[in-house]
Amino acid sequence: MRLVDVTRTINIEKIAGKMRGVEADVVIAEYPFTIHINDKELVTLLCSPTHLEYLALGFLQSEGFIQDDSSIKNIEFDEEKGYINVHIYNGERILNEKAFGKRTLTTGCGKGTTFHDVAQSLASDPIHSKMMISTEKVFEFVNQLHESAQIFRKTGGAHISTLASEQEMMFVHEDIGRHNALDKLFGECIMKDVGFEDKIIITSGRISSEMLIKSAKRKIPILISRSAATQLSVELAEKAGITLIGFVRNDKMNIYTNGWRIV
Amino acid sequence: MRLVDVTRTINIEKIAGKMRGVEADVVIAEYPFTIHINDKELVTLLCSPTHLEYLALGFLQSEGFIQDDSSIKNIEFDEEKGYINVHIYNGERILNEKAFGKRTLTTGCGKGTTFHDVAQSLASDPIHSKMMISTEKVFEFVNQLHESAQIFRKTGGAHISTLASEQEMMFVHEDIGRHNALDKLFGECIMKDVGFEDKIIITSGRISSEMLIKSAKRKIPILISRSAATQLSVELAEKAGITLIGFVRNDKMNIYTNGWRIV
Repeated sequence: MRLVDVTRTINIEKIAGKMRGVEADVVIAEYPFTIHINDKELVTLLCSPTHLEYLALGFLQSEGFIQDDSSIKNIEFDEEKGYINVHIYNGERILNEKAFGKRTLTTGCGKGTTFHDVAQSLASDPIHSKMMISTEKVFEFVNQLHESAQIFRKTGGAHISTLASEQEMMFVHEDIGRHNALDKLFGECIMKDVGFEDKIIITSGRISSEMLIKSAKRKIPILISRSAATQLSVELAEKAGITLIGFVRNDKMNIYTNGWRIV
Repeated sequence: MRLVDVTRTINIEKIAGKMRGVEADVVIAEYPFTIHINDKELVTLLCSPTHLEYLALGFLQSEGFIQDDSSIKNIEFDEEKGYINVHIYNGERILNEKAFGKRTLTTGCGKGTTFHDVAQSLASDPIHSKMMISTEKVFEFVNQLHESAQIFRKTGGAHISTLASEQEMMFVHEDIGRHNALDKLFGECIMKDVGFEDKIIITSGRISSEMLIKSAKRKIPILISRSAATQLSVELAEKAGITLIGFVRNDKMNIYTNGWRIV
């Protein structure tokens, strides 16, 4: 791990029944990471300090600042200082457009475009992927993800997400923010030139509309969570042609939409 | 409940072992709520559709648009349409200042002011409240809160928070977003003219730096969570003079900072 550790050990007071004493405890780090575009400060994300370059690129793609790596002129990245400056083509124009755009703040961290515009654009161009996976594979992925969750196990304060092909988990990221964990996956895809359209996302975090929209923008056909999905994410998944699965635990799961992809 | 229901019942496919069938399931609603200031669209929050006027006022106070109810000229609120337009004094000046400010996006939804500025201002004016509570009371509050969590019990997708005096829980709000649940509490305080400085916050949600900052800005001396606290929230609680408690479960708790208030 670079920069600062992902977790820190600190001395705290613990109470258990009638006992009270000072003990070492592991807490999750929360790191303010500032992203610049064309020398202009854009935003500070609070995140787990791992793979910050992936986080930056995934975030910029989620927010529409870049399309893919062809949008990028060059990147100045100082991992020690937690500094990134992404030089993009048409930066001035895009920054101006965004400055006058509307903001949507979500349960996580969505913003940038008007919520209703996004919902409409998903519906107008749904995903037609014929990809299917078996229920056994869904359970296998979720169990594998759960076993990989090292930071969560230490601190109880992290989310974990993976991008998988039909066969196997390809990339895994943990972060204090469930949106950051997704953006790190997307950023890794951009840097390694991996396509999205035949992939599956599996996450420990709840699926809100913004989690759904992040996946839908990449045309990812299957989105799986160990936790709950909101009513709006279910509606959007239906419109976007996404198979949305929640509450995968033991031998149970809820298939909210497009169940034909699960065999 | 007004507007739309807080939960929706929809038919989904459920898999349990070798069984697969369509069943009714309850999912949590996610409602896009747009806040206007002096006729200008400011932000769309995705939230649970309850007590939207509290949410708006709490949010505006968290973000520094209003100080208290004396900052407000009048409020146009159409609950059916999910529309609120808050007319504030010095609106033009404040909106201009904010437009040129920097944004911090957090694991939840913080933004508005530079993160480092906020951290510094907390440290320069710490909380000196002599308030204390017993460990028994901490356990009692957390159990009571857990029992009140109706939406969570139905959907697994909500956070619950309460504002309590030394003696009892005063206000309780549930929301898909843990930040929204806090802002609803603060909004209710503004509208009912209830002070913050002798109060306790108890929440189901994780304590990130932004949750801590929201409480610290109101000079609330004690912040209690059933879940984890991040390293940064612990550092900020130390600087701000806040008693921060996490992982309150059964007869156990972690006291991260200023344990002298817990007797």
